[in-house]
Amino acid sequence: MNLFAVILAGGSGTRLWPYSRQSRPKQLLPLLDGNSLLQETVGRLAPLVPAEQVLVIGHVAHVDEIRRQLPQVPAGQVVGEPAPLGTAAAVGLGAALVAASDPGGVMLVLPADHVIEPPDRFLADAGRAAAAAAHDLLVTFGIVPHRPETGYGYIELGDQLDCCPGARSVVRFHEKPDARTARRYVSAGSYVWNSGMFAWSVPTIRRALEQHLPSIASAVAGIVAGSHPDPAQLAARLPAAYETITERTTIDYGVMEKSANVACIPATFRWNDVGSFAALAEAVPHDAHGNTERGQSLLLDCHDCLVLSLGGRQVAAVGLDGLVVVDTPDALLVCPKDRAQEVRRVVDALKAGGQEELL
Amino acid sequence: MNLFAVILAGGSGTRLWPYSRQSRPKQLLPLLDGNSLLQETVGRLAPLVPAEQVLVIGHVAHVDEIRRQLPQVPAGQVVGEPAPLGTAAAVGLGAALVAASDPGGVMLVLPADHVIEPPDRFLADAGRAAAAAAHDLLVTFGIVPHRPETGYGYIELGDQLDCCPGARSVVRFHEKPDARTARRYVSAGSYVWNSGMFAWSVPTIRRALEQHLPSIASAVAGIVAGSHPDPAQLAARLPAAYETITERTTIDYGVMEKSANVACIPATFRWNDVGSFAALAEAVPHDAHGNTERGQSLLLDCHDCLVLSLGGRQVAAVGLDGLVVVDTPDALLVCPKDRAQEVRRVVDALKAGGQEELL
Repeated sequence: MNLFAVILAGGSGTRLWPYSRQSRPKQLLPLLDGNSLLQETVGRLAPLVPAEQVLVIGHVAHVDEIRRQLPQVPAGQVVGEPAPLGTAAAVGLGAALVAASDPGGVMLVLPADHVIEPPDRFLADAGRAAAAAAHDLLVTFGIVPHRPETGYGYIELGDQLDCCPGARSVVRFHEKPDARTARRYVSAGSYVWNSGMFAWSVPTIRRALEQHLPSIASAVAGIVAGSHPDPAQLAARLPAAYETITERTTIDYGVMEKSANVACIPATFRWNDVGSFAALAEAVPHDAHGNTERGQSLLLDCHDCLVLSLGGRQVAAVGLDGLVVVDTPDALLVCPKDRAQEVRRVVDALKAGGQEELL
Repeated sequence: MNLFAVILAGGSGTRLWPYSRQSRPKQLLPLLDGNSLLQETVGRLAPLVPAEQVLVIGHVAHVDEIRRQLPQVPAGQVVGEPAPLGTAAAVGLGAALVAASDPGGVMLVLPADHVIEPPDRFLADAGRAAAAAAHDLLVTFGIVPHRPETGYGYIELGDQLDCCPGARSVVRFHEKPDARTARRYVSAGSYVWNSGMFAWSVPTIRRALEQHLPSIASAVAGIVAGSHPDPAQLAARLPAAYETITERTTIDYGVMEKSANVACIPATFRWNDVGSFAALAEAVPHDAHGNTERGQSLLLDCHDCLVLSLGGRQVAAVGLDGLVVVDTPDALLVCPKDRAQEVRRVVDALKAGGQEELL
C-alpha cells in the first residue's frame, strides 16, 4: 500500500481568541510551549508516511508560515486555498493531488490542530484505518467519549467488520446532541465522537465526491488535469477552479453521512481537539490546584484556572475558580471555563464592530 | 471662629492596585473620571474654608503633584512628610502649623480620599462640627451604617449634647467587629462608622497630644518654633523632627479612644472611603446590568462587574458575575468584588518578590 497524508490546516480557531488570531490560527501556534500543533501532527506521522507524501492544505495567507514550520515537507506539497470553502473542498483537492502521484494510493486525512497521545497508539490505529481503506471503505476515526459532550457529533457503531481488524460498521451519524441525549450515548457504550480524521483510497473518495459533491470533483479534476502541477501552476489555477465550487460543506455532511460504505476505527489514543480554552486547559499540565499558568502571573487562592500572560505583563488574580484569563499585547479575555465556547461571540462582536485588527 | 482645614493626603491606597500605585495613590487619582478625590475634597470645602487656610499634608514624593492639582492652595500650605508615621503625626504637624497662624483656630481634619455627597449636607455637618469644637470637644464624624460592614471601626453613641446641635456624646469606640457583632451594631441604631474625619480647636488637640502622644507634641512644636516657617525651612526641619517621633499610630487609637471630651456628629451626607474596588464600584454609576466599564471593553452577559481598561487595550469578558477586572499598561488584576479587600495580598506578594517597579 502506498500511504499519503493530507493535513487539513485551514482552521481559523476563533474560539481561542485572543491567543489565536486570523494571522496566527490555532494549528500554527504552540500548545503553550514547544512545537505547534501542525508540527506535532506531521512529526507524529513520520514513521508511517514519508514527508514527501505529506500534503498540507491551508489558507493561502498561511502558506509561507506553514512551509517555515515544516522544512521537511517539500514546498510544493504545501498548498494554499484561495478561500476556505469547508473541508469537503480541501479533501477533494488533496485527493486530486494524491491521485496525480498515485491513482491507487491510500490517504489519511488529518486536521492539523488536534492533540493526540501517545504517538505509537495513533500509528497503530492509523495503520488499521489504512488497511480498512484498502477494502473500498470510507474510514473515520471515532473517539471513545469520556464525558457527555454536546459540542461534537456522534457516530453510532455497528458490528465488528470481518475484513478489517479493529474496524466497526457505522449505523448512523448523529449531530451534536442535547445534554440528555449525550448522556444516553455515553452510557450506551456504542457511540463515539466524530473526530474529523479519515482514511480512504483515492478511487473510493473520488467516486464518493463524484456522486455526492460533483462541483468539487469537477473543480479539482480540472486543477490537476492528469499530471501533478508545479506550485506556480497550482496557485494560478486554484482561484478560478474554487470559484466553480457550489458545495460549501464539510466532508462529514457532504460525503460520510450520505455513504453506505463507511467504517469506523474506535481510537485507542487520547484525543483533544483544543476546540476551546477549556479543552486547551485539559490538554496541558496543571499544578496541584488545577491551575495552568504561563508568563508573569501571580495566583492567590485560585483553583482550576487557565491564566496566560502572553504580553509580558504582570497578571494578578485573587480568589478565582474555573476562570480563563488570557492576556496578550493588544487584547485580554476573561471568561469562565464552562462558557469558553462562547468566545466566538466576542470574535463575532469585534467583527461586527469593525475591529478587524484585533481578529 | 477662624476655621482651617487639614487635609490628610498621605495614604498609599494599596487596595486599588493596579489602578493606584505608590507614585499615584488613590487620593491623587480621578474616581475613574474628572477631578481627583483630593481636588474634590478641597473643592467641597471652598464655601466654608478659604484656600489660604487649607493645609494639605502628604508624602514628600507627592508634594509637586499635590501642588499641581491644587493651584488655589498656596504652595507653602502643601507639606510633605518625610515618612508616613500614621495620622497622629500628620494631625500634630497640622495642628502646629495652624497654631502658627492662629493659636485659637478651629481645624477640620479630612482624609483626601473619601467620596462625599451632596456637598451642601457635608458643609452643614462640618459647620455643626466646628461649632461643637469650640466647646473644647474632640469631634468625630460618624457615618450611619447601611450594612453590617466588618471593615470599619464603630462608635457607640450616647445622648444628644445640649451645648451643640446635632452632636452626640460618645460612649465608646469599638474596633472592627466580626459579622455577627456588626449586625447587632447596625440593628441597635446607636452605632456609627468611624469615618476618620474630625474637628477640634488648636488648644484642645494640642493638649490631647501633649497628654497622650508627647513625642509628637514635642517634635511638631520644635518644627514650628513659635513662627510659621517658610516651605524651605519646614522641609529642612521635618526629617530630623520626625526621627524623634516614637508614637507611630493613628489619631483614633492615639488620642480619640483615650480621651473623655469626645463628641460625634452623625453625618447627614453619603460617604464612601473607596477602600476597595468593591467600594469604588459603589461610588460610580452602573449600567442596567450593574456593570461599570471604562475604556475599550466588551462585556457579553456580564453582571455586577467593574471592568476598567486603562491601558488602551481591548478587554473582552463573557459570562462574568461580580468580578473586578482592572487592566493597566503593565499589570492586570482579576478578582471577585467580594474579595476585593484581598488585593493588598497581591501588593504584599509583589513587594516580597522584589517587583517594586509594579507597586
